[in-house]
Amino acid sequence: MPKISGRGFAMPQSPIRKLAPLADKAKARGVKVYHLNIGQPDVATPPIALEALKNINLKIFEYSPSDGLLSLRQKLVQYYAKFNINVAVEDIIITAGGSEAVNIAFLSCLDPDDEIIVPEPAYANYTAFAIGSGAIVRPVVSSIDEGFRLPSIDKFEELITPRTKGIMICNPNNPTGYLYTHSELNKIRDLIKKYDLFLFSDEVYREFCYTGAPYISAFHLKGIEHNVVLIDSFSKRYSETGLRVGALVTKNEEVKRSAIKFCQARLSPPLIGQMIAEASLDTPEEYMLDVYNEYVERRKFMIDELNRIPGVYSPIPMGAFYTVARLPIDDSDRFCEWLLSDFQYEGQTIMMAPASGFYTNKGVGRNEVRLAYVLNIEELAKAMQILRVALEQYPHRTI
Amino acid sequence: MPKISGRGFAMPQSPIRKLAPLADKAKARGVKVYHLNIGQPDVATPPIALEALKNINLKIFEYSPSDGLLSLRQKLVQYYAKFNINVAVEDIIITAGGSEAVNIAFLSCLDPDDEIIVPEPAYANYTAFAIGSGAIVRPVVSSIDEGFRLPSIDKFEELITPRTKGIMICNPNNPTGYLYTHSELNKIRDLIKKYDLFLFSDEVYREFCYTGAPYISAFHLKGIEHNVVLIDSFSKRYSETGLRVGALVTKNEEVKRSAIKFCQARLSPPLIGQMIAEASLDTPEEYMLDVYNEYVERRKFMIDELNRIPGVYSPIPMGAFYTVARLPIDDSDRFCEWLLSDFQYEGQTIMMAPASGFYTNKGVGRNEVRLAYVLNIEELAKAMQILRVALEQYPHRTI
Repeated sequence: MPKISGRGFAMPQSPIRKLAPLADKAKARGVKVYHLNIGQPDVATPPIALEALKNINLKIFEYSPSDGLLSLRQKLVQYYAKFNINVAVEDIIITAGGSEAVNIAFLSCLDPDDEIIVPEPAYANYTAFAIGSGAIVRPVVSSIDEGFRLPSIDKFEELITPRTKGIMICNPNNPTGYLYTHSELNKIRDLIKKYDLFLFSDEVYREFCYTGAPYISAFHLKGIEHNVVLIDSFSKRYSETGLRVGALVTKNEEVKRSAIKFCQARLSPPLIGQMIAEASLDTPEEYMLDVYNEYVERRKFMIDELNRIPGVYSPIPMGAFYTVARLPIDDSDRFCEWLLSDFQYEGQTIMMAPASGFYTNKGVGRNEVRLAYVLNIEELAKAMQILRVALEQYPHRTI
Repeated sequence: MPKISGRGFAMPQSPIRKLAPLADKAKARGVKVYHLNIGQPDVATPPIALEALKNINLKIFEYSPSDGLLSLRQKLVQYYAKFNINVAVEDIIITAGGSEAVNIAFLSCLDPDDEIIVPEPAYANYTAFAIGSGAIVRPVVSSIDEGFRLPSIDKFEELITPRTKGIMICNPNNPTGYLYTHSELNKIRDLIKKYDLFLFSDEVYREFCYTGAPYISAFHLKGIEHNVVLIDSFSKRYSETGLRVGALVTKNEEVKRSAIKFCQARLSPPLIGQMIAEASLDTPEEYMLDVYNEYVERRKFMIDELNRIPGVYSPIPMGAFYTVARLPIDDSDRFCEWLLSDFQYEGQTIMMAPASGFYTNKGVGRNEVRLAYVLNIEELAKAMQILRVALEQYPHRTI
């Protein structure tokens, strides 16, 4: 048999999805699994989106343009304007979720052996797409003891080589929930400018910032407008993860020209998803506020519960709907597998994402897990109780 | 500004889609454009699929599994069995169209500088995805004068180097409509076996074979079961191009393991598309037969019309819904642009795909175009009339 590619071997499994087969087995045994592992909100998709699906009246499900439906792109211009992100229709390319936007951004901007600097813990799929494109992730590791704040900008500068092509940030952050300050973002901007790098900015959790301060986009940073490649998605904002609609937004003409060629190769983004996404942009403010308030409550509840469990520590996440917590365990991969394979409490268990997959370097974050607060408070309460009991029973507890 | 990637520059524009801006401009001037350029059937999507959309009753549009909905994969097993393609659920990975299946197949199997041999003219996006993965396409050029039949197998063997990893075929063929004979496929099989290569087999036009002989899949070829990576799609079969649902099918465990990691990175294929695709598999035979008969008629009509135009020649395509025709012109890129920018006949024109984009080597196929017979006969008649007049008026006619 012919050998698969080296990158096929090197490709990491998703830390969020790799344990799914164990969860399926647990469920097959009749065990209820609370999913804290995945950013799949339990919040209902906005009624206006559900209705849009019902109103679709096509006779043929045709290709859409490779850069997406014009009407959707036009409406996104207005959406961004509300956040003082001033982009034109031509700056927006619709993609199959934020994932494809990352992939196409990397393919368009990075050659094999080019390097990108990524503050870690980081969303694991950046590394996956970097491997796909042959690029190399150089991590700057932030620490749970410092609440995952951006490491000193010197740490970034130390990593810069002639092959450095960009910095990738996620703000608000997945997996930590960290929200970059204006001062931190200005430091990144200075570096981008000084070394003429790309700034890949994943801003899919824009609506989920838990401070009163206005949201800061990479497009708000002065003087680097043509260096920014913004990654966006409808998935989290409107509980529409399954639609696979996102966007790549850039004012850089060369990146646009390149990206559209990759888009032509895959023909078009999903048509029906785009139609629903377009309708979703008219979601009333009340829905967004209800969802926001719900996450505020859940965040407070889950973080407080976590920090009350002996040996557990979670910083307070200021955005998104995740936190990375430290547990009194030897190895979170082992613990998360044990939870699904060997443990249950009153016929229930929990699934979490081992944090090892959010760090490039082996051994880092071994006692950390990512939890998503995408369940209602009643379920979160049960999940936290299960975690408490599990930590008492886990045979490889450290403290 | 930072430079984009080398592959971003190298990436070809789609020969099928690159002229779309000129078509938009023609339409803006009030000119009606007959689209012979793109494989977008005008045939209505099956009623069972349209109904499935209406019956979707979800409250949340959630992620599906990375390898696709289990129920869809189970039903595909039965679908394939009807063609004597014996695969298991675990052999099937659902993708965002056949395009993503090609992309993931290449990423999983090919490293930068690995080579694949592709009979040309070939579907342009194979080259695009090869460039994305850093692999190199080595073409074996078939000739319109031989009806695009497979060149001598010696031509393939001459190209084999230590970097050769596979052969990519499309059967029935896009863009030529050529249908490989059993004897041709056996020769390819022997080569695959002798050099232990991958056989990437794009079979999305399986239902559109215009001979009475039974359809031959790569999976029917004995002794290379673990070398085959089959590319499939719902798009053409059910007029569902916009749904973006396809599949990668393989019995090779390593390829599967690798492919699923690339699938995890992009999270999941489109949910609603999958639900509709699943329903589409129950499309009654009568619908399929009506569509088939329609294409038989259109094929006869268009090919006969083409060959009646002085200086034009098209072989008879035996499958799919395309043909590559030779025109009495200097350069099909120039001609196709001229058709959209400088020509009209009674307020109408036609759009075709210049064949240059279906060949790797510059200058090959310069007087050839791909035409898709995806319009009804009345419209095809008008389109053929327009082509005839256009060829009379084109200032760079050769004969």
